[in-house]
Amino acid sequence: MKIHHVGIAVESLRAAVPVFEKLLGAAAGSEETVEDQKVRVAAFRVGESRLELLEATAADSPIAGFIAKRGPGIHHLTLTVPNLDDALRRLERDGMRLIDREPRRGAGNERIAFVHPSSTAGVLIELVEEK
Amino acid sequence: MKIHHVGIAVESLRAAVPVFEKLLGAAAGSEETVEDQKVRVAAFRVGESRLELLEATAADSPIAGFIAKRGPGIHHLTLTVPNLDDALRRLERDGMRLIDREPRRGAGNERIAFVHPSSTAGVLIELVEEK
Repeated sequence: MKIHHVGIAVESLRAAVPVFEKLLGAAAGSEETVEDQKVRVAAFRVGESRLELLEATAADSPIAGFIAKRGPGIHHLTLTVPNLDDALRRLERDGMRLIDREPRRGAGNERIAFVHPSSTAGVLIELVEEK
Repeated sequence: MKIHHVGIAVESLRAAVPVFEKLLGAAAGSEETVEDQKVRVAAFRVGESRLELLEATAADSPIAGFIAKRGPGIHHLTLTVPNLDDALRRLERDGMRLIDREPRRGAGNERIAFVHPSSTAGVLIELVEEK
C-alpha cells in the first residue's frame, strides 16, 4: 500500500496552483476535468505520491459542498491497493461502511472506490487499484 | 520532496487505531506522546510515508481545538525537504506566512516548521528536514 494522492479542496485553481508551485518548488501537471466528480484537478508529483488540488465545476459538486461546510483544505486521502475487489470484500467483512460497494472509474480511468468517513474516524478514504 | 506523513485528528486512539489497522491491513507502530504539541501519536507506515493518528492529551491541545471546530479528520500534511533553513528562507521570500520562522524540534527530535494555512489554501503544512 502507498499514498496515491492527497486531495485538497480549493476555491480557485488559478489562485492555489501558484501557491503550491512555490511551496513544492515544482510546476503542476496539466489540468484535468473529472465530469463524474464535477471537479477540475491540478496535480503535483511528490515522491511516490501526488497532491491533487480540486476545484468545483458546479454548485452541486462534492467539493463545493465541502468548502461551504468546512472551508478549503484537505478533502480526502487516496491509498493504492493491489486488488480493489479483494480490498472491498475484506473491508465489508470487517464491518466498514463503503460508499462504493463495487469499483467504479475515476480520473485517468483508474478503478476506484470510496469508504465512508463514518467508518474511518472522519477521514474520507479513496482506494485505487494499482495498475 | 516526499510526503513524510498525513496527520489525522482523532477523538480516541483506542477507537481509531483498530479502524486503521483494518483499513491498512497492518499494525500501528508504538505510540508516542509529543508533549510540545499535547498529542499522543500512533503511526502506520504506508509506502515511503506514514499516517499519524493524533489524539489530544489536554483540552488546550491544537488537536482538541481542531476537533471542536471541524470534527475529526485530516489535520495536516507533512512534506520532507532536504534543507529546512533554505526552504523557510525561500518561502518567506515568496511571501508565505510561516508559523515557525526558525526550525524547532518535533516528534523523534526531527527539525520541523509549520507554514500558516492562510498562505496555503487552507492546508496546514508541516515541513520536516530529511535526515
